[in-house]
Amino acid sequence: MATKTHLSDGEVDQYSVTEEENLAVWLLAIKTLRIQPFNLPSLGPYDVKIRIKAVGICGSDIHHFKNMRVANFVVKKPMVLGHECAGIVEQVGSQVKFLMIGDRVALEPGISCRQCQLCKDGHYNLCCKMKFFGSPPTNGALANQVVHPADLCFKLPDNVSLEEGAMCEPLSVGVHACRRANVGPDTKLIIIGAGPIGLVTMLAARAFGSPKVVIVDVDDCRLSFAKDLGADEIIKVSPIMQDVEEEVVRIRNAMGGPVDLSFDCVGFNKTMTTALQATRAGGKVCLVGLGQSEMTLPLTSAAAREVDVIGIFRYRNTWPLCIELLRTGKIDVKPLITHRYNFTQEGVDEAFETSSRGGNAIKVMFNL
Amino acid sequence: MATKTHLSDGEVDQYSVTEEENLAVWLLAIKTLRIQPFNLPSLGPYDVKIRIKAVGICGSDIHHFKNMRVANFVVKKPMVLGHECAGIVEQVGSQVKFLMIGDRVALEPGISCRQCQLCKDGHYNLCCKMKFFGSPPTNGALANQVVHPADLCFKLPDNVSLEEGAMCEPLSVGVHACRRANVGPDTKLIIIGAGPIGLVTMLAARAFGSPKVVIVDVDDCRLSFAKDLGADEIIKVSPIMQDVEEEVVRIRNAMGGPVDLSFDCVGFNKTMTTALQATRAGGKVCLVGLGQSEMTLPLTSAAAREVDVIGIFRYRNTWPLCIELLRTGKIDVKPLITHRYNFTQEGVDEAFETSSRGGNAIKVMFNL
Amino acid sequence: MATKTHLSDGEVDQYSVTEEENLAVWLLAIKTLRIQPFNLPSLGPYDVKIRIKAVGICGSDIHHFKNMRVANFVVKKPMVLGHECAGIVEQVGSQVKFLMIGDRVALEPGISCRQCQLCKDGHYNLCCKMKFFGSPPTNGALANQVVHPADLCFKLPDNVSLEEGAMCEPLSVGVHACRRANVGPDTKLIIIGAGPIGLVTMLAARAFGSPKVVIVDVDDCRLSFAKDLGADEIIKVSPIMQDVEEEVVRIRNAMGGPVDLSFDCVGFNKTMTTALQATRAGGKVCLVGLGQSEMTLPLTSAAAREVDVIGIFRYRNTWPLCIELLRTGKIDVKPLITHRYNFTQEGVDEAFETSSRGGNAIKVMFNL
Amino acid sequence: MATKTHLSDGEVDQYSVTEEENLAVWLLAIKTLRIQPFNLPSLGPYDVKIRIKAVGICGSDIHHFKNMRVANFVVKKPMVLGHECAGIVEQVGSQVKFLMIGDRVALEPGISCRQCQLCKDGHYNLCCKMKFFGSPPTNGALANQVVHPADLCFKLPDNVSLEEGAMCEPLSVGVHACRRANVGPDTKLIIIGAGPIGLVTMLAARAFGSPKVVIVDVDDCRLSFAKDLGADEIIKVSPIMQDVEEEVVRIRNAMGGPVDLSFDCVGFNKTMTTALQATRAGGKVCLVGLGQSEMTLPLTSAAAREVDVIGIFRYRNTWPLCIELLRTGKIDVKPLITHRYNFTQEGVDEAFETSSRGGNAIKVMFNL
Repeated sequence: MATKTHLSDGEVDQYSVTEEENLAVWLLAIKTLRIQPFNLPSLGPYDVKIRIKAVGICGSDIHHFKNMRVANFVVKKPMVLGHECAGIVEQVGSQVKFLMIGDRVALEPGISCRQCQLCKDGHYNLCCKMKFFGSPPTNGALANQVVHPADLCFKLPDNVSLEEGAMCEPLSVGVHACRRANVGPDTKLIIIGAGPIGLVTMLAARAFGSPKVVIVDVDDCRLSFAKDLGADEIIKVSPIMQDVEEEVVRIRNAMGGPVDLSFDCVGFNKTMTTALQATRAGGKVCLVGLGQSEMTLPLTSAAAREVDVIGIFRYRNTWPLCIELLRTGKIDVKPLITHRYNFTQEGVDEAFETSSRGGNAIKVMFNL
Repeated sequence: MATKTHLSDGEVDQYSVTEEENLAVWLLAIKTLRIQPFNLPSLGPYDVKIRIKAVGICGSDIHHFKNMRVANFVVKKPMVLGHECAGIVEQVGSQVKFLMIGDRVALEPGISCRQCQLCKDGHYNLCCKMKFFGSPPTNGALANQVVHPADLCFKLPDNVSLEEGAMCEPLSVGVHACRRANVGPDTKLIIIGAGPIGLVTMLAARAFGSPKVVIVDVDDCRLSFAKDLGADEIIKVSPIMQDVEEEVVRIRNAMGGPVDLSFDCVGFNKTMTTALQATRAGGKVCLVGLGQSEMTLPLTSAAAREVDVIGIFRYRNTWPLCIELLRTGKIDVKPLITHRYNFTQEGVDEAFETSSRGGNAIKVMFNL
Repeated sequence: MATKTHLSDGEVDQYSVTEEENLAVWLLAIKTLRIQPFNLPSLGPYDVKIRIKAVGICGSDIHHFKNMRVANFVVKKPMVLGHECAGIVEQVGSQVKFLMIGDRVALEPGISCRQCQLCKDGHYNLCCKMKFFGSPPTNGALANQVVHPADLCFKLPDNVSLEEGAMCEPLSVGVHACRRANVGPDTKLIIIGAGPIGLVTMLAARAFGSPKVVIVDVDDCRLSFAKDLGADEIIKVSPIMQDVEEEVVRIRNAMGGPVDLSFDCVGFNKTMTTALQATRAGGKVCLVGLGQSEMTLPLTSAAAREVDVIGIFRYRNTWPLCIELLRTGKIDVKPLITHRYNFTQEGVDEAFETSSRGGNAIKVMFNL
Repeated sequence: MATKTHLSDGEVDQYSVTEEENLAVWLLAIKTLRIQPFNLPSLGPYDVKIRIKAVGICGSDIHHFKNMRVANFVVKKPMVLGHECAGIVEQVGSQVKFLMIGDRVALEPGISCRQCQLCKDGHYNLCCKMKFFGSPPTNGALANQVVHPADLCFKLPDNVSLEEGAMCEPLSVGVHACRRANVGPDTKLIIIGAGPIGLVTMLAARAFGSPKVVIVDVDDCRLSFAKDLGADEIIKVSPIMQDVEEEVVRIRNAMGGPVDLSFDCVGFNKTMTTALQATRAGGKVCLVGLGQSEMTLPLTSAAAREVDVIGIFRYRNTWPLCIELLRTGKIDVKPLITHRYNFTQEGVDEAFETSSRGGNAIKVMFNL
């Protein structure tokens, strides 16, 4: 690649090289990833071109990697993966006012139609024409460069790194969940599941003022990590349904009062049953994890206590808040980044392998 | 009973007889009701004594009648039934300012503690110290007289009958459901189940401005009644789970647009599955009927479309609105009263028999 | 104009004539309107071209006509007036899916940027880049044809006329005010000012379920019209500030209970003082009319009763609801259209003269 | 007093002395306070008797002290002052379950009727039958003992002092203002007025997650105190109306972005004008301070940007949250307590003198 030679010459401005070949990580088949060229669309008047510098691997990337699908979304042809990303502005469209070449930005990965009723009502995350990085058939952002609408690229303050910028995406899930569930200083809550989503939900709940967060999981290691990250109490539970009643008692004792809100960041019969039964009359259960497509639940008794079940899908309008929370230090996402890889074929293979294994990997990050 | 002799003499003022023996309908055992004396508590300074004139039979009365229990509430000793009631003020406590002897009133049947956090927040229907007419161990109102807090007795305007006053109780369920689900002129909705609760929910939804109400049931007769009462469209469905997908298509076609809200006034796997799948992204499902205690549901896909599930328990602060809706004619509950009985042992036996059978009986009413 | 000749030949399809000269009503100077050619922009992929058939005159059009300005918006060069409009689709952009040539549509007049935070939050009416028909420097729609984004053109059902379609614009103000003030069946309200905006607010409040609407004005004629249109009670007041206290007593008596909400559709010291003082503790005042730029008000005592003051600016996402309310007959706007004129120089001069005079003119409408 | 002799004997249990003479601070005339006997009502079944240990002086106490009135509330006969208080439970009514003799409690000072619509809706602070400590004609709590409903006495955790318990009252104003204005991590706000109410509002806003608080005042000393207490930015302004425009620019610059919410904790023409003009379209102004009864304001232009004006009156359901915020250390009110006095005639005179002078006194506290 001539471009590389150029760059090694050190004579070319970092952001002006446009004839360089753009490379991306393509999912070709189950567990088959290749770094290959990725042609970008032309830059529209409201677009920017971004030099990607950090990309995190998300659970849905792993689903695609392993199964070529997530729920009803099937990968039918080679697709670029990746949607948790940040980078540097390299080119700006003619109508772009608020970004300049060289700006460091975090990217919101979904482009909605802006015209349907849901978009115009501000619920654009539910737009049925959404084009979302790395969700078939839309290519993702694990690439040298992408072209993206400028209003979905949010400038990072000096004290927020590009890796932290990429973390705005998973953090947005927690922020959206807390907004939807109306978390505030009056909300004592439990989080079931201490995986990445449970952890970002905890961080967000703290920033929203929750005075007490109790985390529940089956795994000692995850619980210990959650405790270090700021959980008030941790509760180890079993995967056995018969234990629910006794575990609910332990949860309430740990809370030392009524549970106003339960986040189920797992989404199985048992976790959701625990959530429904632990929550006080008039409280809420927010279903964040989507483990089982069909669940058997004691929904009736929860409904008869006016315990509402709130679902969430991705997020909307969360980037400015996430960036502000990172800037002010109210949230620190750096401890979640447990592994880092380079943008090479070997790095890609290892990164997806590590992330697939789970274990002590919370967030696996590429540095490009 | 001397009192009766007195009354037949026609010489005693209707409201001044206080030494009369108070009679009530006692549930003694399964399907065993007896009219027997019922001692009233003394009148407190904020209480009124009411001469009961109209009492409707509710599904929960029938549950008690048949099973001596509803959910976890078990009838352990003889209990007076009845909670849908209206009557005439016969005596007022020393501190009562807004009611006078002779006032016609509808009674809200639950007395909350007024001191717990839920009461002070305005969610008194969830008060765990609630004493509710005819819910064990609290005696009900199917009696000649009851003593009740004055602030739970709501004066009826001249153009609202005592029977309509008694109907404020079931209507309150519909009103509370519509408030919780935030029904307004933007809300196109379906109601699954055309029984008494489905019908009052429809009447309430209309009064809240819903522009389109589609009613779904398995029974032609009920659907026909619902149509006459004002449903825009009726849809006959089967009790078979396999038919859900096709029925959802028919529901959407009948709606002629997205379903913003679904009321499940039945509460079975199939009805709730239908509700979840028929509702648009960002919409709501309100679970009103509590048929099954445990349900198997496609909750995940609904949550991922941000379809929230709202439960309800009875009602709060609904009587003034119900009375206003009856006064202005925005709601007419009279067609729902299909059967009337006298307050005699024979009348009582027949009334509960009729109400138990269901069939064409919507609301069975006692005139006392 | 050759086009007219063509049309008189009867050989040319009504909607395919594109070389016709487009004419519009231009505001050239104070009280100086001329019908002159108006060049349309080219049709974008998401646009439609509309043959305008009905345009209403609004108070702001009259302000522009008389003063060449409204508030800080100054007409600095010739501008086409008009923003209450409906017409027939004549041409559709390549990406337009939901409209076809020949569709009858009502036009929402404001084009927001769709990219700023307010737009993405669903509050697009507050977008600071809004381009709004007939608000300087954006040309209006009192023209033979306009080009407009397809998603701002809402198809009319068969039973809603084009004139009614044009009335969606003023009706939207009432609908938005009722939404912002959360009008429902629990809301007993007063409306101060029985002009066009007061009247559409009343119609909307009815459709939102308000059980009692009391209208207040200084003019017998307007009050009589309001009464005929459906006000429960009308109250004649004076323009004298000293009368406020006594008038508030009359308003409360007419309401027969607390005033939950007051719409001030005038916006003067006296009307707003009346609104603040008449409203119950915990109620709301919605300021719709903007008569005075600075007001002297007893705001403190209202604040200390938690009476909130809600402002409104135009509307958002109201067209689908307005059309539904017209379709179902819940609102009838036809009585508001009191005068009709043709699209000729003489018609234009007379129409603006009539509308300027006020008097018995409520809505003056052009038929094109 | 025999009681004191008894106590000096050391033979009597601290909490069982009931024959002791109860003393209180009576307001007899303008600036005339006397410690005199105060007879307590008998203990009802749901009441507790409290040995008062800490009482703060509030601005309204000073108003009564200086003018024998606050707004329309006039002191017509001698009245005990004081409503910011905490103490120790000395006797419990027969039905009291959650408190025991010896419990340290903070007292919510207002007793609502629990029966009117506002009470039952949860808006009991607006109850028109409210009996509030030290608001005429209800006697206050600057006394050795008071009798109070148990559900308005909130147990303090071990790490919250009685003085901090008394501070729950002023803090409640800030908490209620933040709840009403819906402060959260998205809310960048200004506070106009750095007096005691402005400061507790700042502390509350922080606890509700506000990422940026800018405080505005005319006094360097107060601003400096506010800065030390945690304001992000402080802005010194003038009392001159002509300076508003320039000051709004400085406020926006200090915020570094739009002002989502403005608290006016002063309540004068200038402060409210500043609040209305500084706030972004779609934002809120919360009027907390009630300096002027009539204000001249540019309300129209604010309304036309949908800037809503929210009023507050005292608070509701705030004690549990205040105590939780103190317990967890999210709020530290101790720096606000600048002066302490004993419960002697001399102490009383000096305390009210100090508090009246203002100056560097923020909160003046009695230790009993």
